[in-house]
Amino acid sequence: MARHLAIVGATGAVGREICALIPERKLLQVGKLSLFASRRGVGKQIAVGHSTVEVQELTDSSFDGVDFAFFCAGNERSREWAPFAVGVGAVVIDNSAAFRLDPDVPLVIPEINPGDITDHNGIIASPNCSTVILNLPIWPLHRANPVKRVVVSTYQAASGAGTAAMEELRTQAADYLAGRDVVPRVFPHPIAFNLFSHETPTGSDGYNAEERQMIAETRKIFHEPSLAITATCVRVPVLRAHSQSINLTFERPITPDEVREILSSAPGIEVVDDVEAGRFPMPVDATGRDNVLIGRIRQDVSQPDGRGIELFASGDHLRKGAALNTVQILELLRS
Amino acid sequence: MARHLAIVGATGAVGREICALIPERKLLQVGKLSLFASRRGVGKQIAVGHSTVEVQELTDSSFDGVDFAFFCAGNERSREWAPFAVGVGAVVIDNSAAFRLDPDVPLVIPEINPGDITDHNGIIASPNCSTVILNLPIWPLHRANPVKRVVVSTYQAASGAGTAAMEELRTQAADYLAGRDVVPRVFPHPIAFNLFSHETPTGSDGYNAEERQMIAETRKIFHEPSLAITATCVRVPVLRAHSQSINLTFERPITPDEVREILSSAPGIEVVDDVEAGRFPMPVDATGRDNVLIGRIRQDVSQPDGRGIELFASGDHLRKGAALNTVQILELLRS
Repeated sequence: MARHLAIVGATGAVGREICALIPERKLLQVGKLSLFASRRGVGKQIAVGHSTVEVQELTDSSFDGVDFAFFCAGNERSREWAPFAVGVGAVVIDNSAAFRLDPDVPLVIPEINPGDITDHNGIIASPNCSTVILNLPIWPLHRANPVKRVVVSTYQAASGAGTAAMEELRTQAADYLAGRDVVPRVFPHPIAFNLFSHETPTGSDGYNAEERQMIAETRKIFHEPSLAITATCVRVPVLRAHSQSINLTFERPITPDEVREILSSAPGIEVVDDVEAGRFPMPVDATGRDNVLIGRIRQDVSQPDGRGIELFASGDHLRKGAALNTVQILELLRS
Repeated sequence: MARHLAIVGATGAVGREICALIPERKLLQVGKLSLFASRRGVGKQIAVGHSTVEVQELTDSSFDGVDFAFFCAGNERSREWAPFAVGVGAVVIDNSAAFRLDPDVPLVIPEINPGDITDHNGIIASPNCSTVILNLPIWPLHRANPVKRVVVSTYQAASGAGTAAMEELRTQAADYLAGRDVVPRVFPHPIAFNLFSHETPTGSDGYNAEERQMIAETRKIFHEPSLAITATCVRVPVLRAHSQSINLTFERPITPDEVREILSSAPGIEVVDDVEAGRFPMPVDATGRDNVLIGRIRQDVSQPDGRGIELFASGDHLRKGAALNTVQILELLRS
């Protein structure tokens, strides 16, 4: 059992979610927890189970004696401090994009590629939240019948950009309803009652960074470096939980019933596909849930050879998309 | 010039938009306008240009002397009254789904298949708003290089389900922000800060009616009865203007520059694709605009043979998606 856990970025959306998971997953029945944040967060008291822990500033001695450190404070903080933490003996579970595509860093979704974890050099990366939500339903299908092509369009919640972004959605919605001007501060465009292409920079190939991450990370996790996959990432005025419209092409014909059967017993997934009641995956239902909800399972009529399947997913990006996945990586490390 | 125009469903979202277009498009410089609505709307005064017109109840004599009647009061009203109006000599431009797939009824987007209008038997149908927004950018590309497959995912505004639905989004958002319970009345699920699969009934094939319409109507308008096309239709908490993530496969390789060049001179379209400024199509920019905004034009990396293109569209479903298209049909009939 770990004696000493640390969370860097403890006051952020993902950090707080990890704090909530620590008692739930019984991670620290015996042991010590250290919480770190940027200056603004220092001194805050965060409830972890029945006790509270004070947030400290990150210093050169912060990782002394730390066994496992969760990093969820952004790329820059991870680049600066993760190698340092490893240098003083901690194993880092990194939630940022800093090391995800580094060939020396395993990128792990425990339900998919737990074996990759053994090869680490002190840092294990947890994928982008959209990658996790996309990969969970595709992987068990891919094992049964290789996936030859993936076309995904996302519907990403404001909170994927942090608590300030979620707050901006609330504020803008209130301002709009009161007839006041809507002023974007966190996002580059209005988010209330609007939507826009994901705010990460768009490259000369026309793809934005979020889309490139989903593509490259899926290939790495699946060990399929040339998997045909394209993504369109869109920010929508939802508070929490990302959704995805997923179009798949398989090597061989596959039926919706086969897909339903495979997904019904797949880990991390819950099939929500009640055609009669009109009940399919929705962000409000996925929020706070460990499982990614999958529905709208149907034969793609545009692929008359029977090799096409359409799916719709909603998953809590802060939970399974981030905090829970990092916690599961810790559990895997200790098992 | 038409001497007598009628609008059935004048108090609804599309009817009001037609009323706004009548002076803008100079449809009635000489002539008479009759407005009809269900009992609740009767007696309302609607501003049309500088005058106001009183809404009347629909009766057996309503269409006497009417040259052209716009129907935008739903499928049932169209089924009941459109043949009657035709019987007394009116030409009906129908905005409902009632006759769109009837082989004897032309389904027309004036920029695409104006020639189909000549074959009418008194009724001309205007397509589903999502079909219009999808077809406008695809058609000019299809003429240059045949489109072999379309995969579309929609982000549809609340007002696509009418003014009451748009009002429900506002009310629910206000209720949520005030900590009150959110109670769905118009939509089957909460719409504020949530999204859900389109509320039309889902069939045994797993597709909902909206998706089936987009597929069947596109095939009819393009005169391509076996065009490979699939759609996923999703309702999002946007007040007005539908968006679409569109993935295309062409017969021959095609580059983003070719697509940009073709779309830049295509009617009904405006290319909004500023990679450096991060400015792409958004509902707030598309609202109230005649043109459908198209951006995120890029080579689909999942089709390494260069035959794949990704697009993102935002278009005002009430304007070009409905009212403007029907008005353009009228203009075509009179030209």
